[in-house]
Amino acid sequence: MVSEQVYVALMHYPCYNKTGAVVTTAITNLDLHDIARVSKTFNLGGYFVVNPQPAQRELAGKILSHWTSGYGSEYNPNRGEALSVVKVVPELEDAISAIEAVSGARPKIIATAARQGGGVASFSEMRELIKEGPHLILFGTGWGLTDEFLSVCDYRLEPVAGLAGYNHLPVRSAVAIILDRLLGYR
Amino acid sequence: MVSEQVYVALMHYPCYNKTGAVVTTAITNLDLHDIARVSKTFNLGGYFVVNPQPAQRELAGKILSHWTSGYGSEYNPNRGEALSVVKVVPELEDAISAIEAVSGARPKIIATAARQGGGVASFSEMRELIKEGPHLILFGTGWGLTDEFLSVCDYRLEPVAGLAGYNHLPVRSAVAIILDRLLGYR
Repeated sequence: MVSEQVYVALMHYPCYNKTGAVVTTAITNLDLHDIARVSKTFNLGGYFVVNPQPAQRELAGKILSHWTSGYGSEYNPNRGEALSVVKVVPELEDAISAIEAVSGARPKIIATAARQGGGVASFSEMRELIKEGPHLILFGTGWGLTDEFLSVCDYRLEPVAGLAGYNHLPVRSAVAIILDRLLGYR
Repeated sequence: MVSEQVYVALMHYPCYNKTGAVVTTAITNLDLHDIARVSKTFNLGGYFVVNPQPAQRELAGKILSHWTSGYGSEYNPNRGEALSVVKVVPELEDAISAIEAVSGARPKIIATAARQGGGVASFSEMRELIKEGPHLILFGTGWGLTDEFLSVCDYRLEPVAGLAGYNHLPVRSAVAIILDRLLGYR
């Protein structure tokens, strides 16, 4: 199935903050849960949480183990099932290597951004492209991935355009809409 | 614009809990924020948070005023812009009356559920139907709206089907996907 060759990564670095400075953002509990549940719904190959700070990765690990093997796994097994798709890694290259180890090919990297940018691929183009080998879709946090970082990805996906100019979707909602547009039933 | 005649309501009663009992669920901060931002992105007429418990409505009111008129409105005005679409009401009938007061017609009520049910409308059917007058789309919390409640709505929308049997989308993600399917660019 095409979806098993599709992976998402939630990037906590290098992201802009409110003032335009480049920072590492913090991992949030809801980003783990909601994006894992959406990833499981669309039957992805996996969901990588990328954060260079060891204390942040440790916190994420504690949350995940609560639901996948701790008390939460008995209280609500559906959460454990979803959160088992999450892997917490320090750098994007770790996610790429993990995908390569499973699929035998280096994934193409698809950047997403709320901002407009040059040379974007449309959703209908990308829906076809992802049928050819593994693809890793990156989502930024904070005020978005840096321009420099976006420019070195293999593709940049068109933004999810709103209907009246408001352009501040939560990353959790952007992941849901983008995966539905790329993989949902039509 | 069609979208301005579309409203969503997040229902905290009558919902099933884990054991199948009918309960009032608690309002969560992220449901306010994420669904407001998605509602604003899709330029809806409004987002109603329906909860019969006064203490719950008071809590929601405090959160909203922080972002729409308190410190949050200066810290991050985009949040205030989104949260200004939220109205907290005790009962569904209050939401219906408010819509009727603005649009001059009683809205048709569209139920959503993750569970399969009889007589559902497809997304493509509903995309056409919502062009005719005001519509209010209901989303359940907890383990979903009760069967009895769903059965008295004007329409029931088909579930967002996953690709491999996992059927536990967060309500926040379901709202994003459903609004995109009904109102997003095609």
